[in-house]
Amino acid sequence: MARHGQAGDTAPATEQAPRKLDPHLDRYAARTEGMTASEIRALFAVASRPEVVSLAGGMPNLAALPLESLATQLSDTIAEDGQVALQYGSAHGVPKLREQICEIMALENIQAHPDDVVITVGSQMGLDMVTRLFCDPGDVVIAEGPSYVGALGSFTAYQAEVVHVEMDDDGLVPSRLEEALTQTAKQGKRVKFLYTIPNFHNPAGVTLAVSRREQVLEICRRHGVLVIEDNPYGLLGFDGQVYQALRATDPDNVVYLGSFSKTFASGIRVGWVLAPHAVREKLVLAAESATLCPPTLNQLLVSRYLSTHDWMGQIKKFREIYRERRDAIISALEQHMPPGCSWTHPDGGFYVWVTVPEGVDTKAMLPRAVTARVAYASGTGFYADGLGSRQMRLSYCYPTPERLKEGVRRLAGVLESELELVQTFGTVHNRLTSGPESPSPDTA
Amino acid sequence: MARHGQAGDTAPATEQAPRKLDPHLDRYAARTEGMTASEIRALFAVASRPEVVSLAGGMPNLAALPLESLATQLSDTIAEDGQVALQYGSAHGVPKLREQICEIMALENIQAHPDDVVITVGSQMGLDMVTRLFCDPGDVVIAEGPSYVGALGSFTAYQAEVVHVEMDDDGLVPSRLEEALTQTAKQGKRVKFLYTIPNFHNPAGVTLAVSRREQVLEICRRHGVLVIEDNPYGLLGFDGQVYQALRATDPDNVVYLGSFSKTFASGIRVGWVLAPHAVREKLVLAAESATLCPPTLNQLLVSRYLSTHDWMGQIKKFREIYRERRDAIISALEQHMPPGCSWTHPDGGFYVWVTVPEGVDTKAMLPRAVTARVAYASGTGFYADGLGSRQMRLSYCYPTPERLKEGVRRLAGVLESELELVQTFGTVHNRLTSGPESPSPDTA
Repeated sequence: MARHGQAGDTAPATEQAPRKLDPHLDRYAARTEGMTASEIRALFAVASRPEVVSLAGGMPNLAALPLESLATQLSDTIAEDGQVALQYGSAHGVPKLREQICEIMALENIQAHPDDVVITVGSQMGLDMVTRLFCDPGDVVIAEGPSYVGALGSFTAYQAEVVHVEMDDDGLVPSRLEEALTQTAKQGKRVKFLYTIPNFHNPAGVTLAVSRREQVLEICRRHGVLVIEDNPYGLLGFDGQVYQALRATDPDNVVYLGSFSKTFASGIRVGWVLAPHAVREKLVLAAESATLCPPTLNQLLVSRYLSTHDWMGQIKKFREIYRERRDAIISALEQHMPPGCSWTHPDGGFYVWVTVPEGVDTKAMLPRAVTARVAYASGTGFYADGLGSRQMRLSYCYPTPERLKEGVRRLAGVLESELELVQTFGTVHNRLTSGPESPSPDTA
Repeated sequence: MARHGQAGDTAPATEQAPRKLDPHLDRYAARTEGMTASEIRALFAVASRPEVVSLAGGMPNLAALPLESLATQLSDTIAEDGQVALQYGSAHGVPKLREQICEIMALENIQAHPDDVVITVGSQMGLDMVTRLFCDPGDVVIAEGPSYVGALGSFTAYQAEVVHVEMDDDGLVPSRLEEALTQTAKQGKRVKFLYTIPNFHNPAGVTLAVSRREQVLEICRRHGVLVIEDNPYGLLGFDGQVYQALRATDPDNVVYLGSFSKTFASGIRVGWVLAPHAVREKLVLAAESATLCPPTLNQLLVSRYLSTHDWMGQIKKFREIYRERRDAIISALEQHMPPGCSWTHPDGGFYVWVTVPEGVDTKAMLPRAVTARVAYASGTGFYADGLGSRQMRLSYCYPTPERLKEGVRRLAGVLESELELVQTFGTVHNRLTSGPESPSPDTA
């Protein structure tokens, strides 16, 4: 009866005024203002059709994974350790896996104690936790320009302001970093950390030169700024080169983020943070309030995989897959792209960063590219400040070399049409008022 | 050479002044102030020794899980769906699992569309995301007193203020809720939501009476306050009773949190949020910035388990296990506890909430209890405002009935010694200056 009466009560309200689209609009926290659905989502539905060559996503290529062996390992994990694997664990992570992670990081000359490793649900969670620990609203994060879209998302979620620092073919430019830090200090802003991807940068495809690493660290130390070193691709150098981590040189001022997403499998969501000891304690508490603990099952699976499988051999296979694709896309770019385009030359990782001639807007061009059955990530999504409209990120990690070549051929055709329009009308800027926004981080 | 020079540079600094314990102390965000390591962690190391009967943790009892069958299912998941299971997915979650979750929620009369379900890394992440969406620093969250310690942790992490509302044997008292809402409004504070665990409350062990549910919803609607309904134990009623969810009655004003941690397995970390449609979009964006996506592998495993296993039969087995343990602990409490103690009578879930006579401080008593080889969670951890020193939570979910009885016998002995001291000296308050703080949420 009560419910019936209520239905009657609410009826007049619907007659009074049109209902707001979101009745909770006045309730959201200020931090949600930066959270807007990227328009590319709708586009991705189209872009993921099989006839479209997608150079947009950053999904690792898992074709080389030994599924049968993994199935057995997972089955054994449950059969032998089920009561542990299916139970809550600590927010800190499984001790044995933390030890194994230290062995992996030793490849980059990092000397770390397993106590200072915190396991996270992918390194995205590491990013989120580090930002949670350090950033008050209005604090500044220095990041390369362009930078990883998922990192920008986390910084936005904590209302941090992002200041980009220019890169060249040798990565972050130290003199520009110095300028940015001096400038923000002059403005009375508080810089909390430099967020950097030193190796095989996403999206730029460049690597921080060895000669610059000590400089970058010294500048940050001098300015009292922490360094967040995000290194998901570090072991994916195509010539087997492994760079010394920033963390190896400056353990007290670097927080290192690692991940198994690119060297093993992304769908298990196991990453880690290596933090200075004092920071680590707070990190565990933050992680506990975020997810209680990372999935125990997944941690035991990774640990067993590392113990029983030739994981370095597997990484070598991945490298070969990606190198073959890098070669394919670079040669296709050289062959097809119209004059005035330039691109980076990645020697590891997943991405090429392409700059197109003046007058072309990659964001506005994207729907036309998808119509021509090729997708990419327009550069604007990788900047917090609106730059990037003359850039695009091409991911070569997933498609076959043949598809990559076909994709670039189509993209070049679209670009040529754009350039004809530019030559005729001067610019094609703003011809579409609502272009797609940014790439989805879950494929970035 | 540069590094050598630097080592020389830093040497004098160590001579100048004693190094701060945490050199990053000035860098943390304001929100970290509430993050302090609970002193019970050290105690838990002792409490987890086999000779100690732990009534402190809230770890589900997984003894009844069919490990062999699960091992096969997991193995099949990898062998058949490996390329999907090991790959990134969407932040929204696997569509089939979201459909199956809607079927589960239908048991509580919830009519939901799979689009409005967002999969999370346990329902702790759901809590964290909901708080992220709604709470600015200083906003008020209304919660039962006592409340779930992990929820209090999330609220603290977002600098929300918690106002507790009293419960009795029928759960949250509506008149007290009304008072609290009126009072906070008078103080000019902004209440964002009521956080409630209506069924088999953690830690109180009580259930919100059916006759009160509509009242609670009406009060919240009238005050413009959202309801967060946390329901991990809803299917664990010992007589098979399943209550209609608050969400079923008021879909537009209730955000529902669900979990497989207690009805299947906690170590897979799969939970979900069912949110009003407009909220759901923001929730997906927030989740994306937090973890990119929940582990695909774990979602496929749960989905396969639900499809191929008699999961309702499994829940019945869990209920029987927990009912037997509830019976054991209640009869032991009746048999052993000294006069002046009282406790709740849970008809589902994991917990009994015990009140001890005046003069006894459960927080101060805990180290002595552990010395007597029994551990519990002192009541103070379940309040944000310092209450709870005369309460304790006993978890009966994990130990065997025999161990439960022995644990309560030991606890009663400790209490009797305390009461003798109280009778002699008036009070045992504050005899220990640094008692253990709060239970660890990862076992709560």
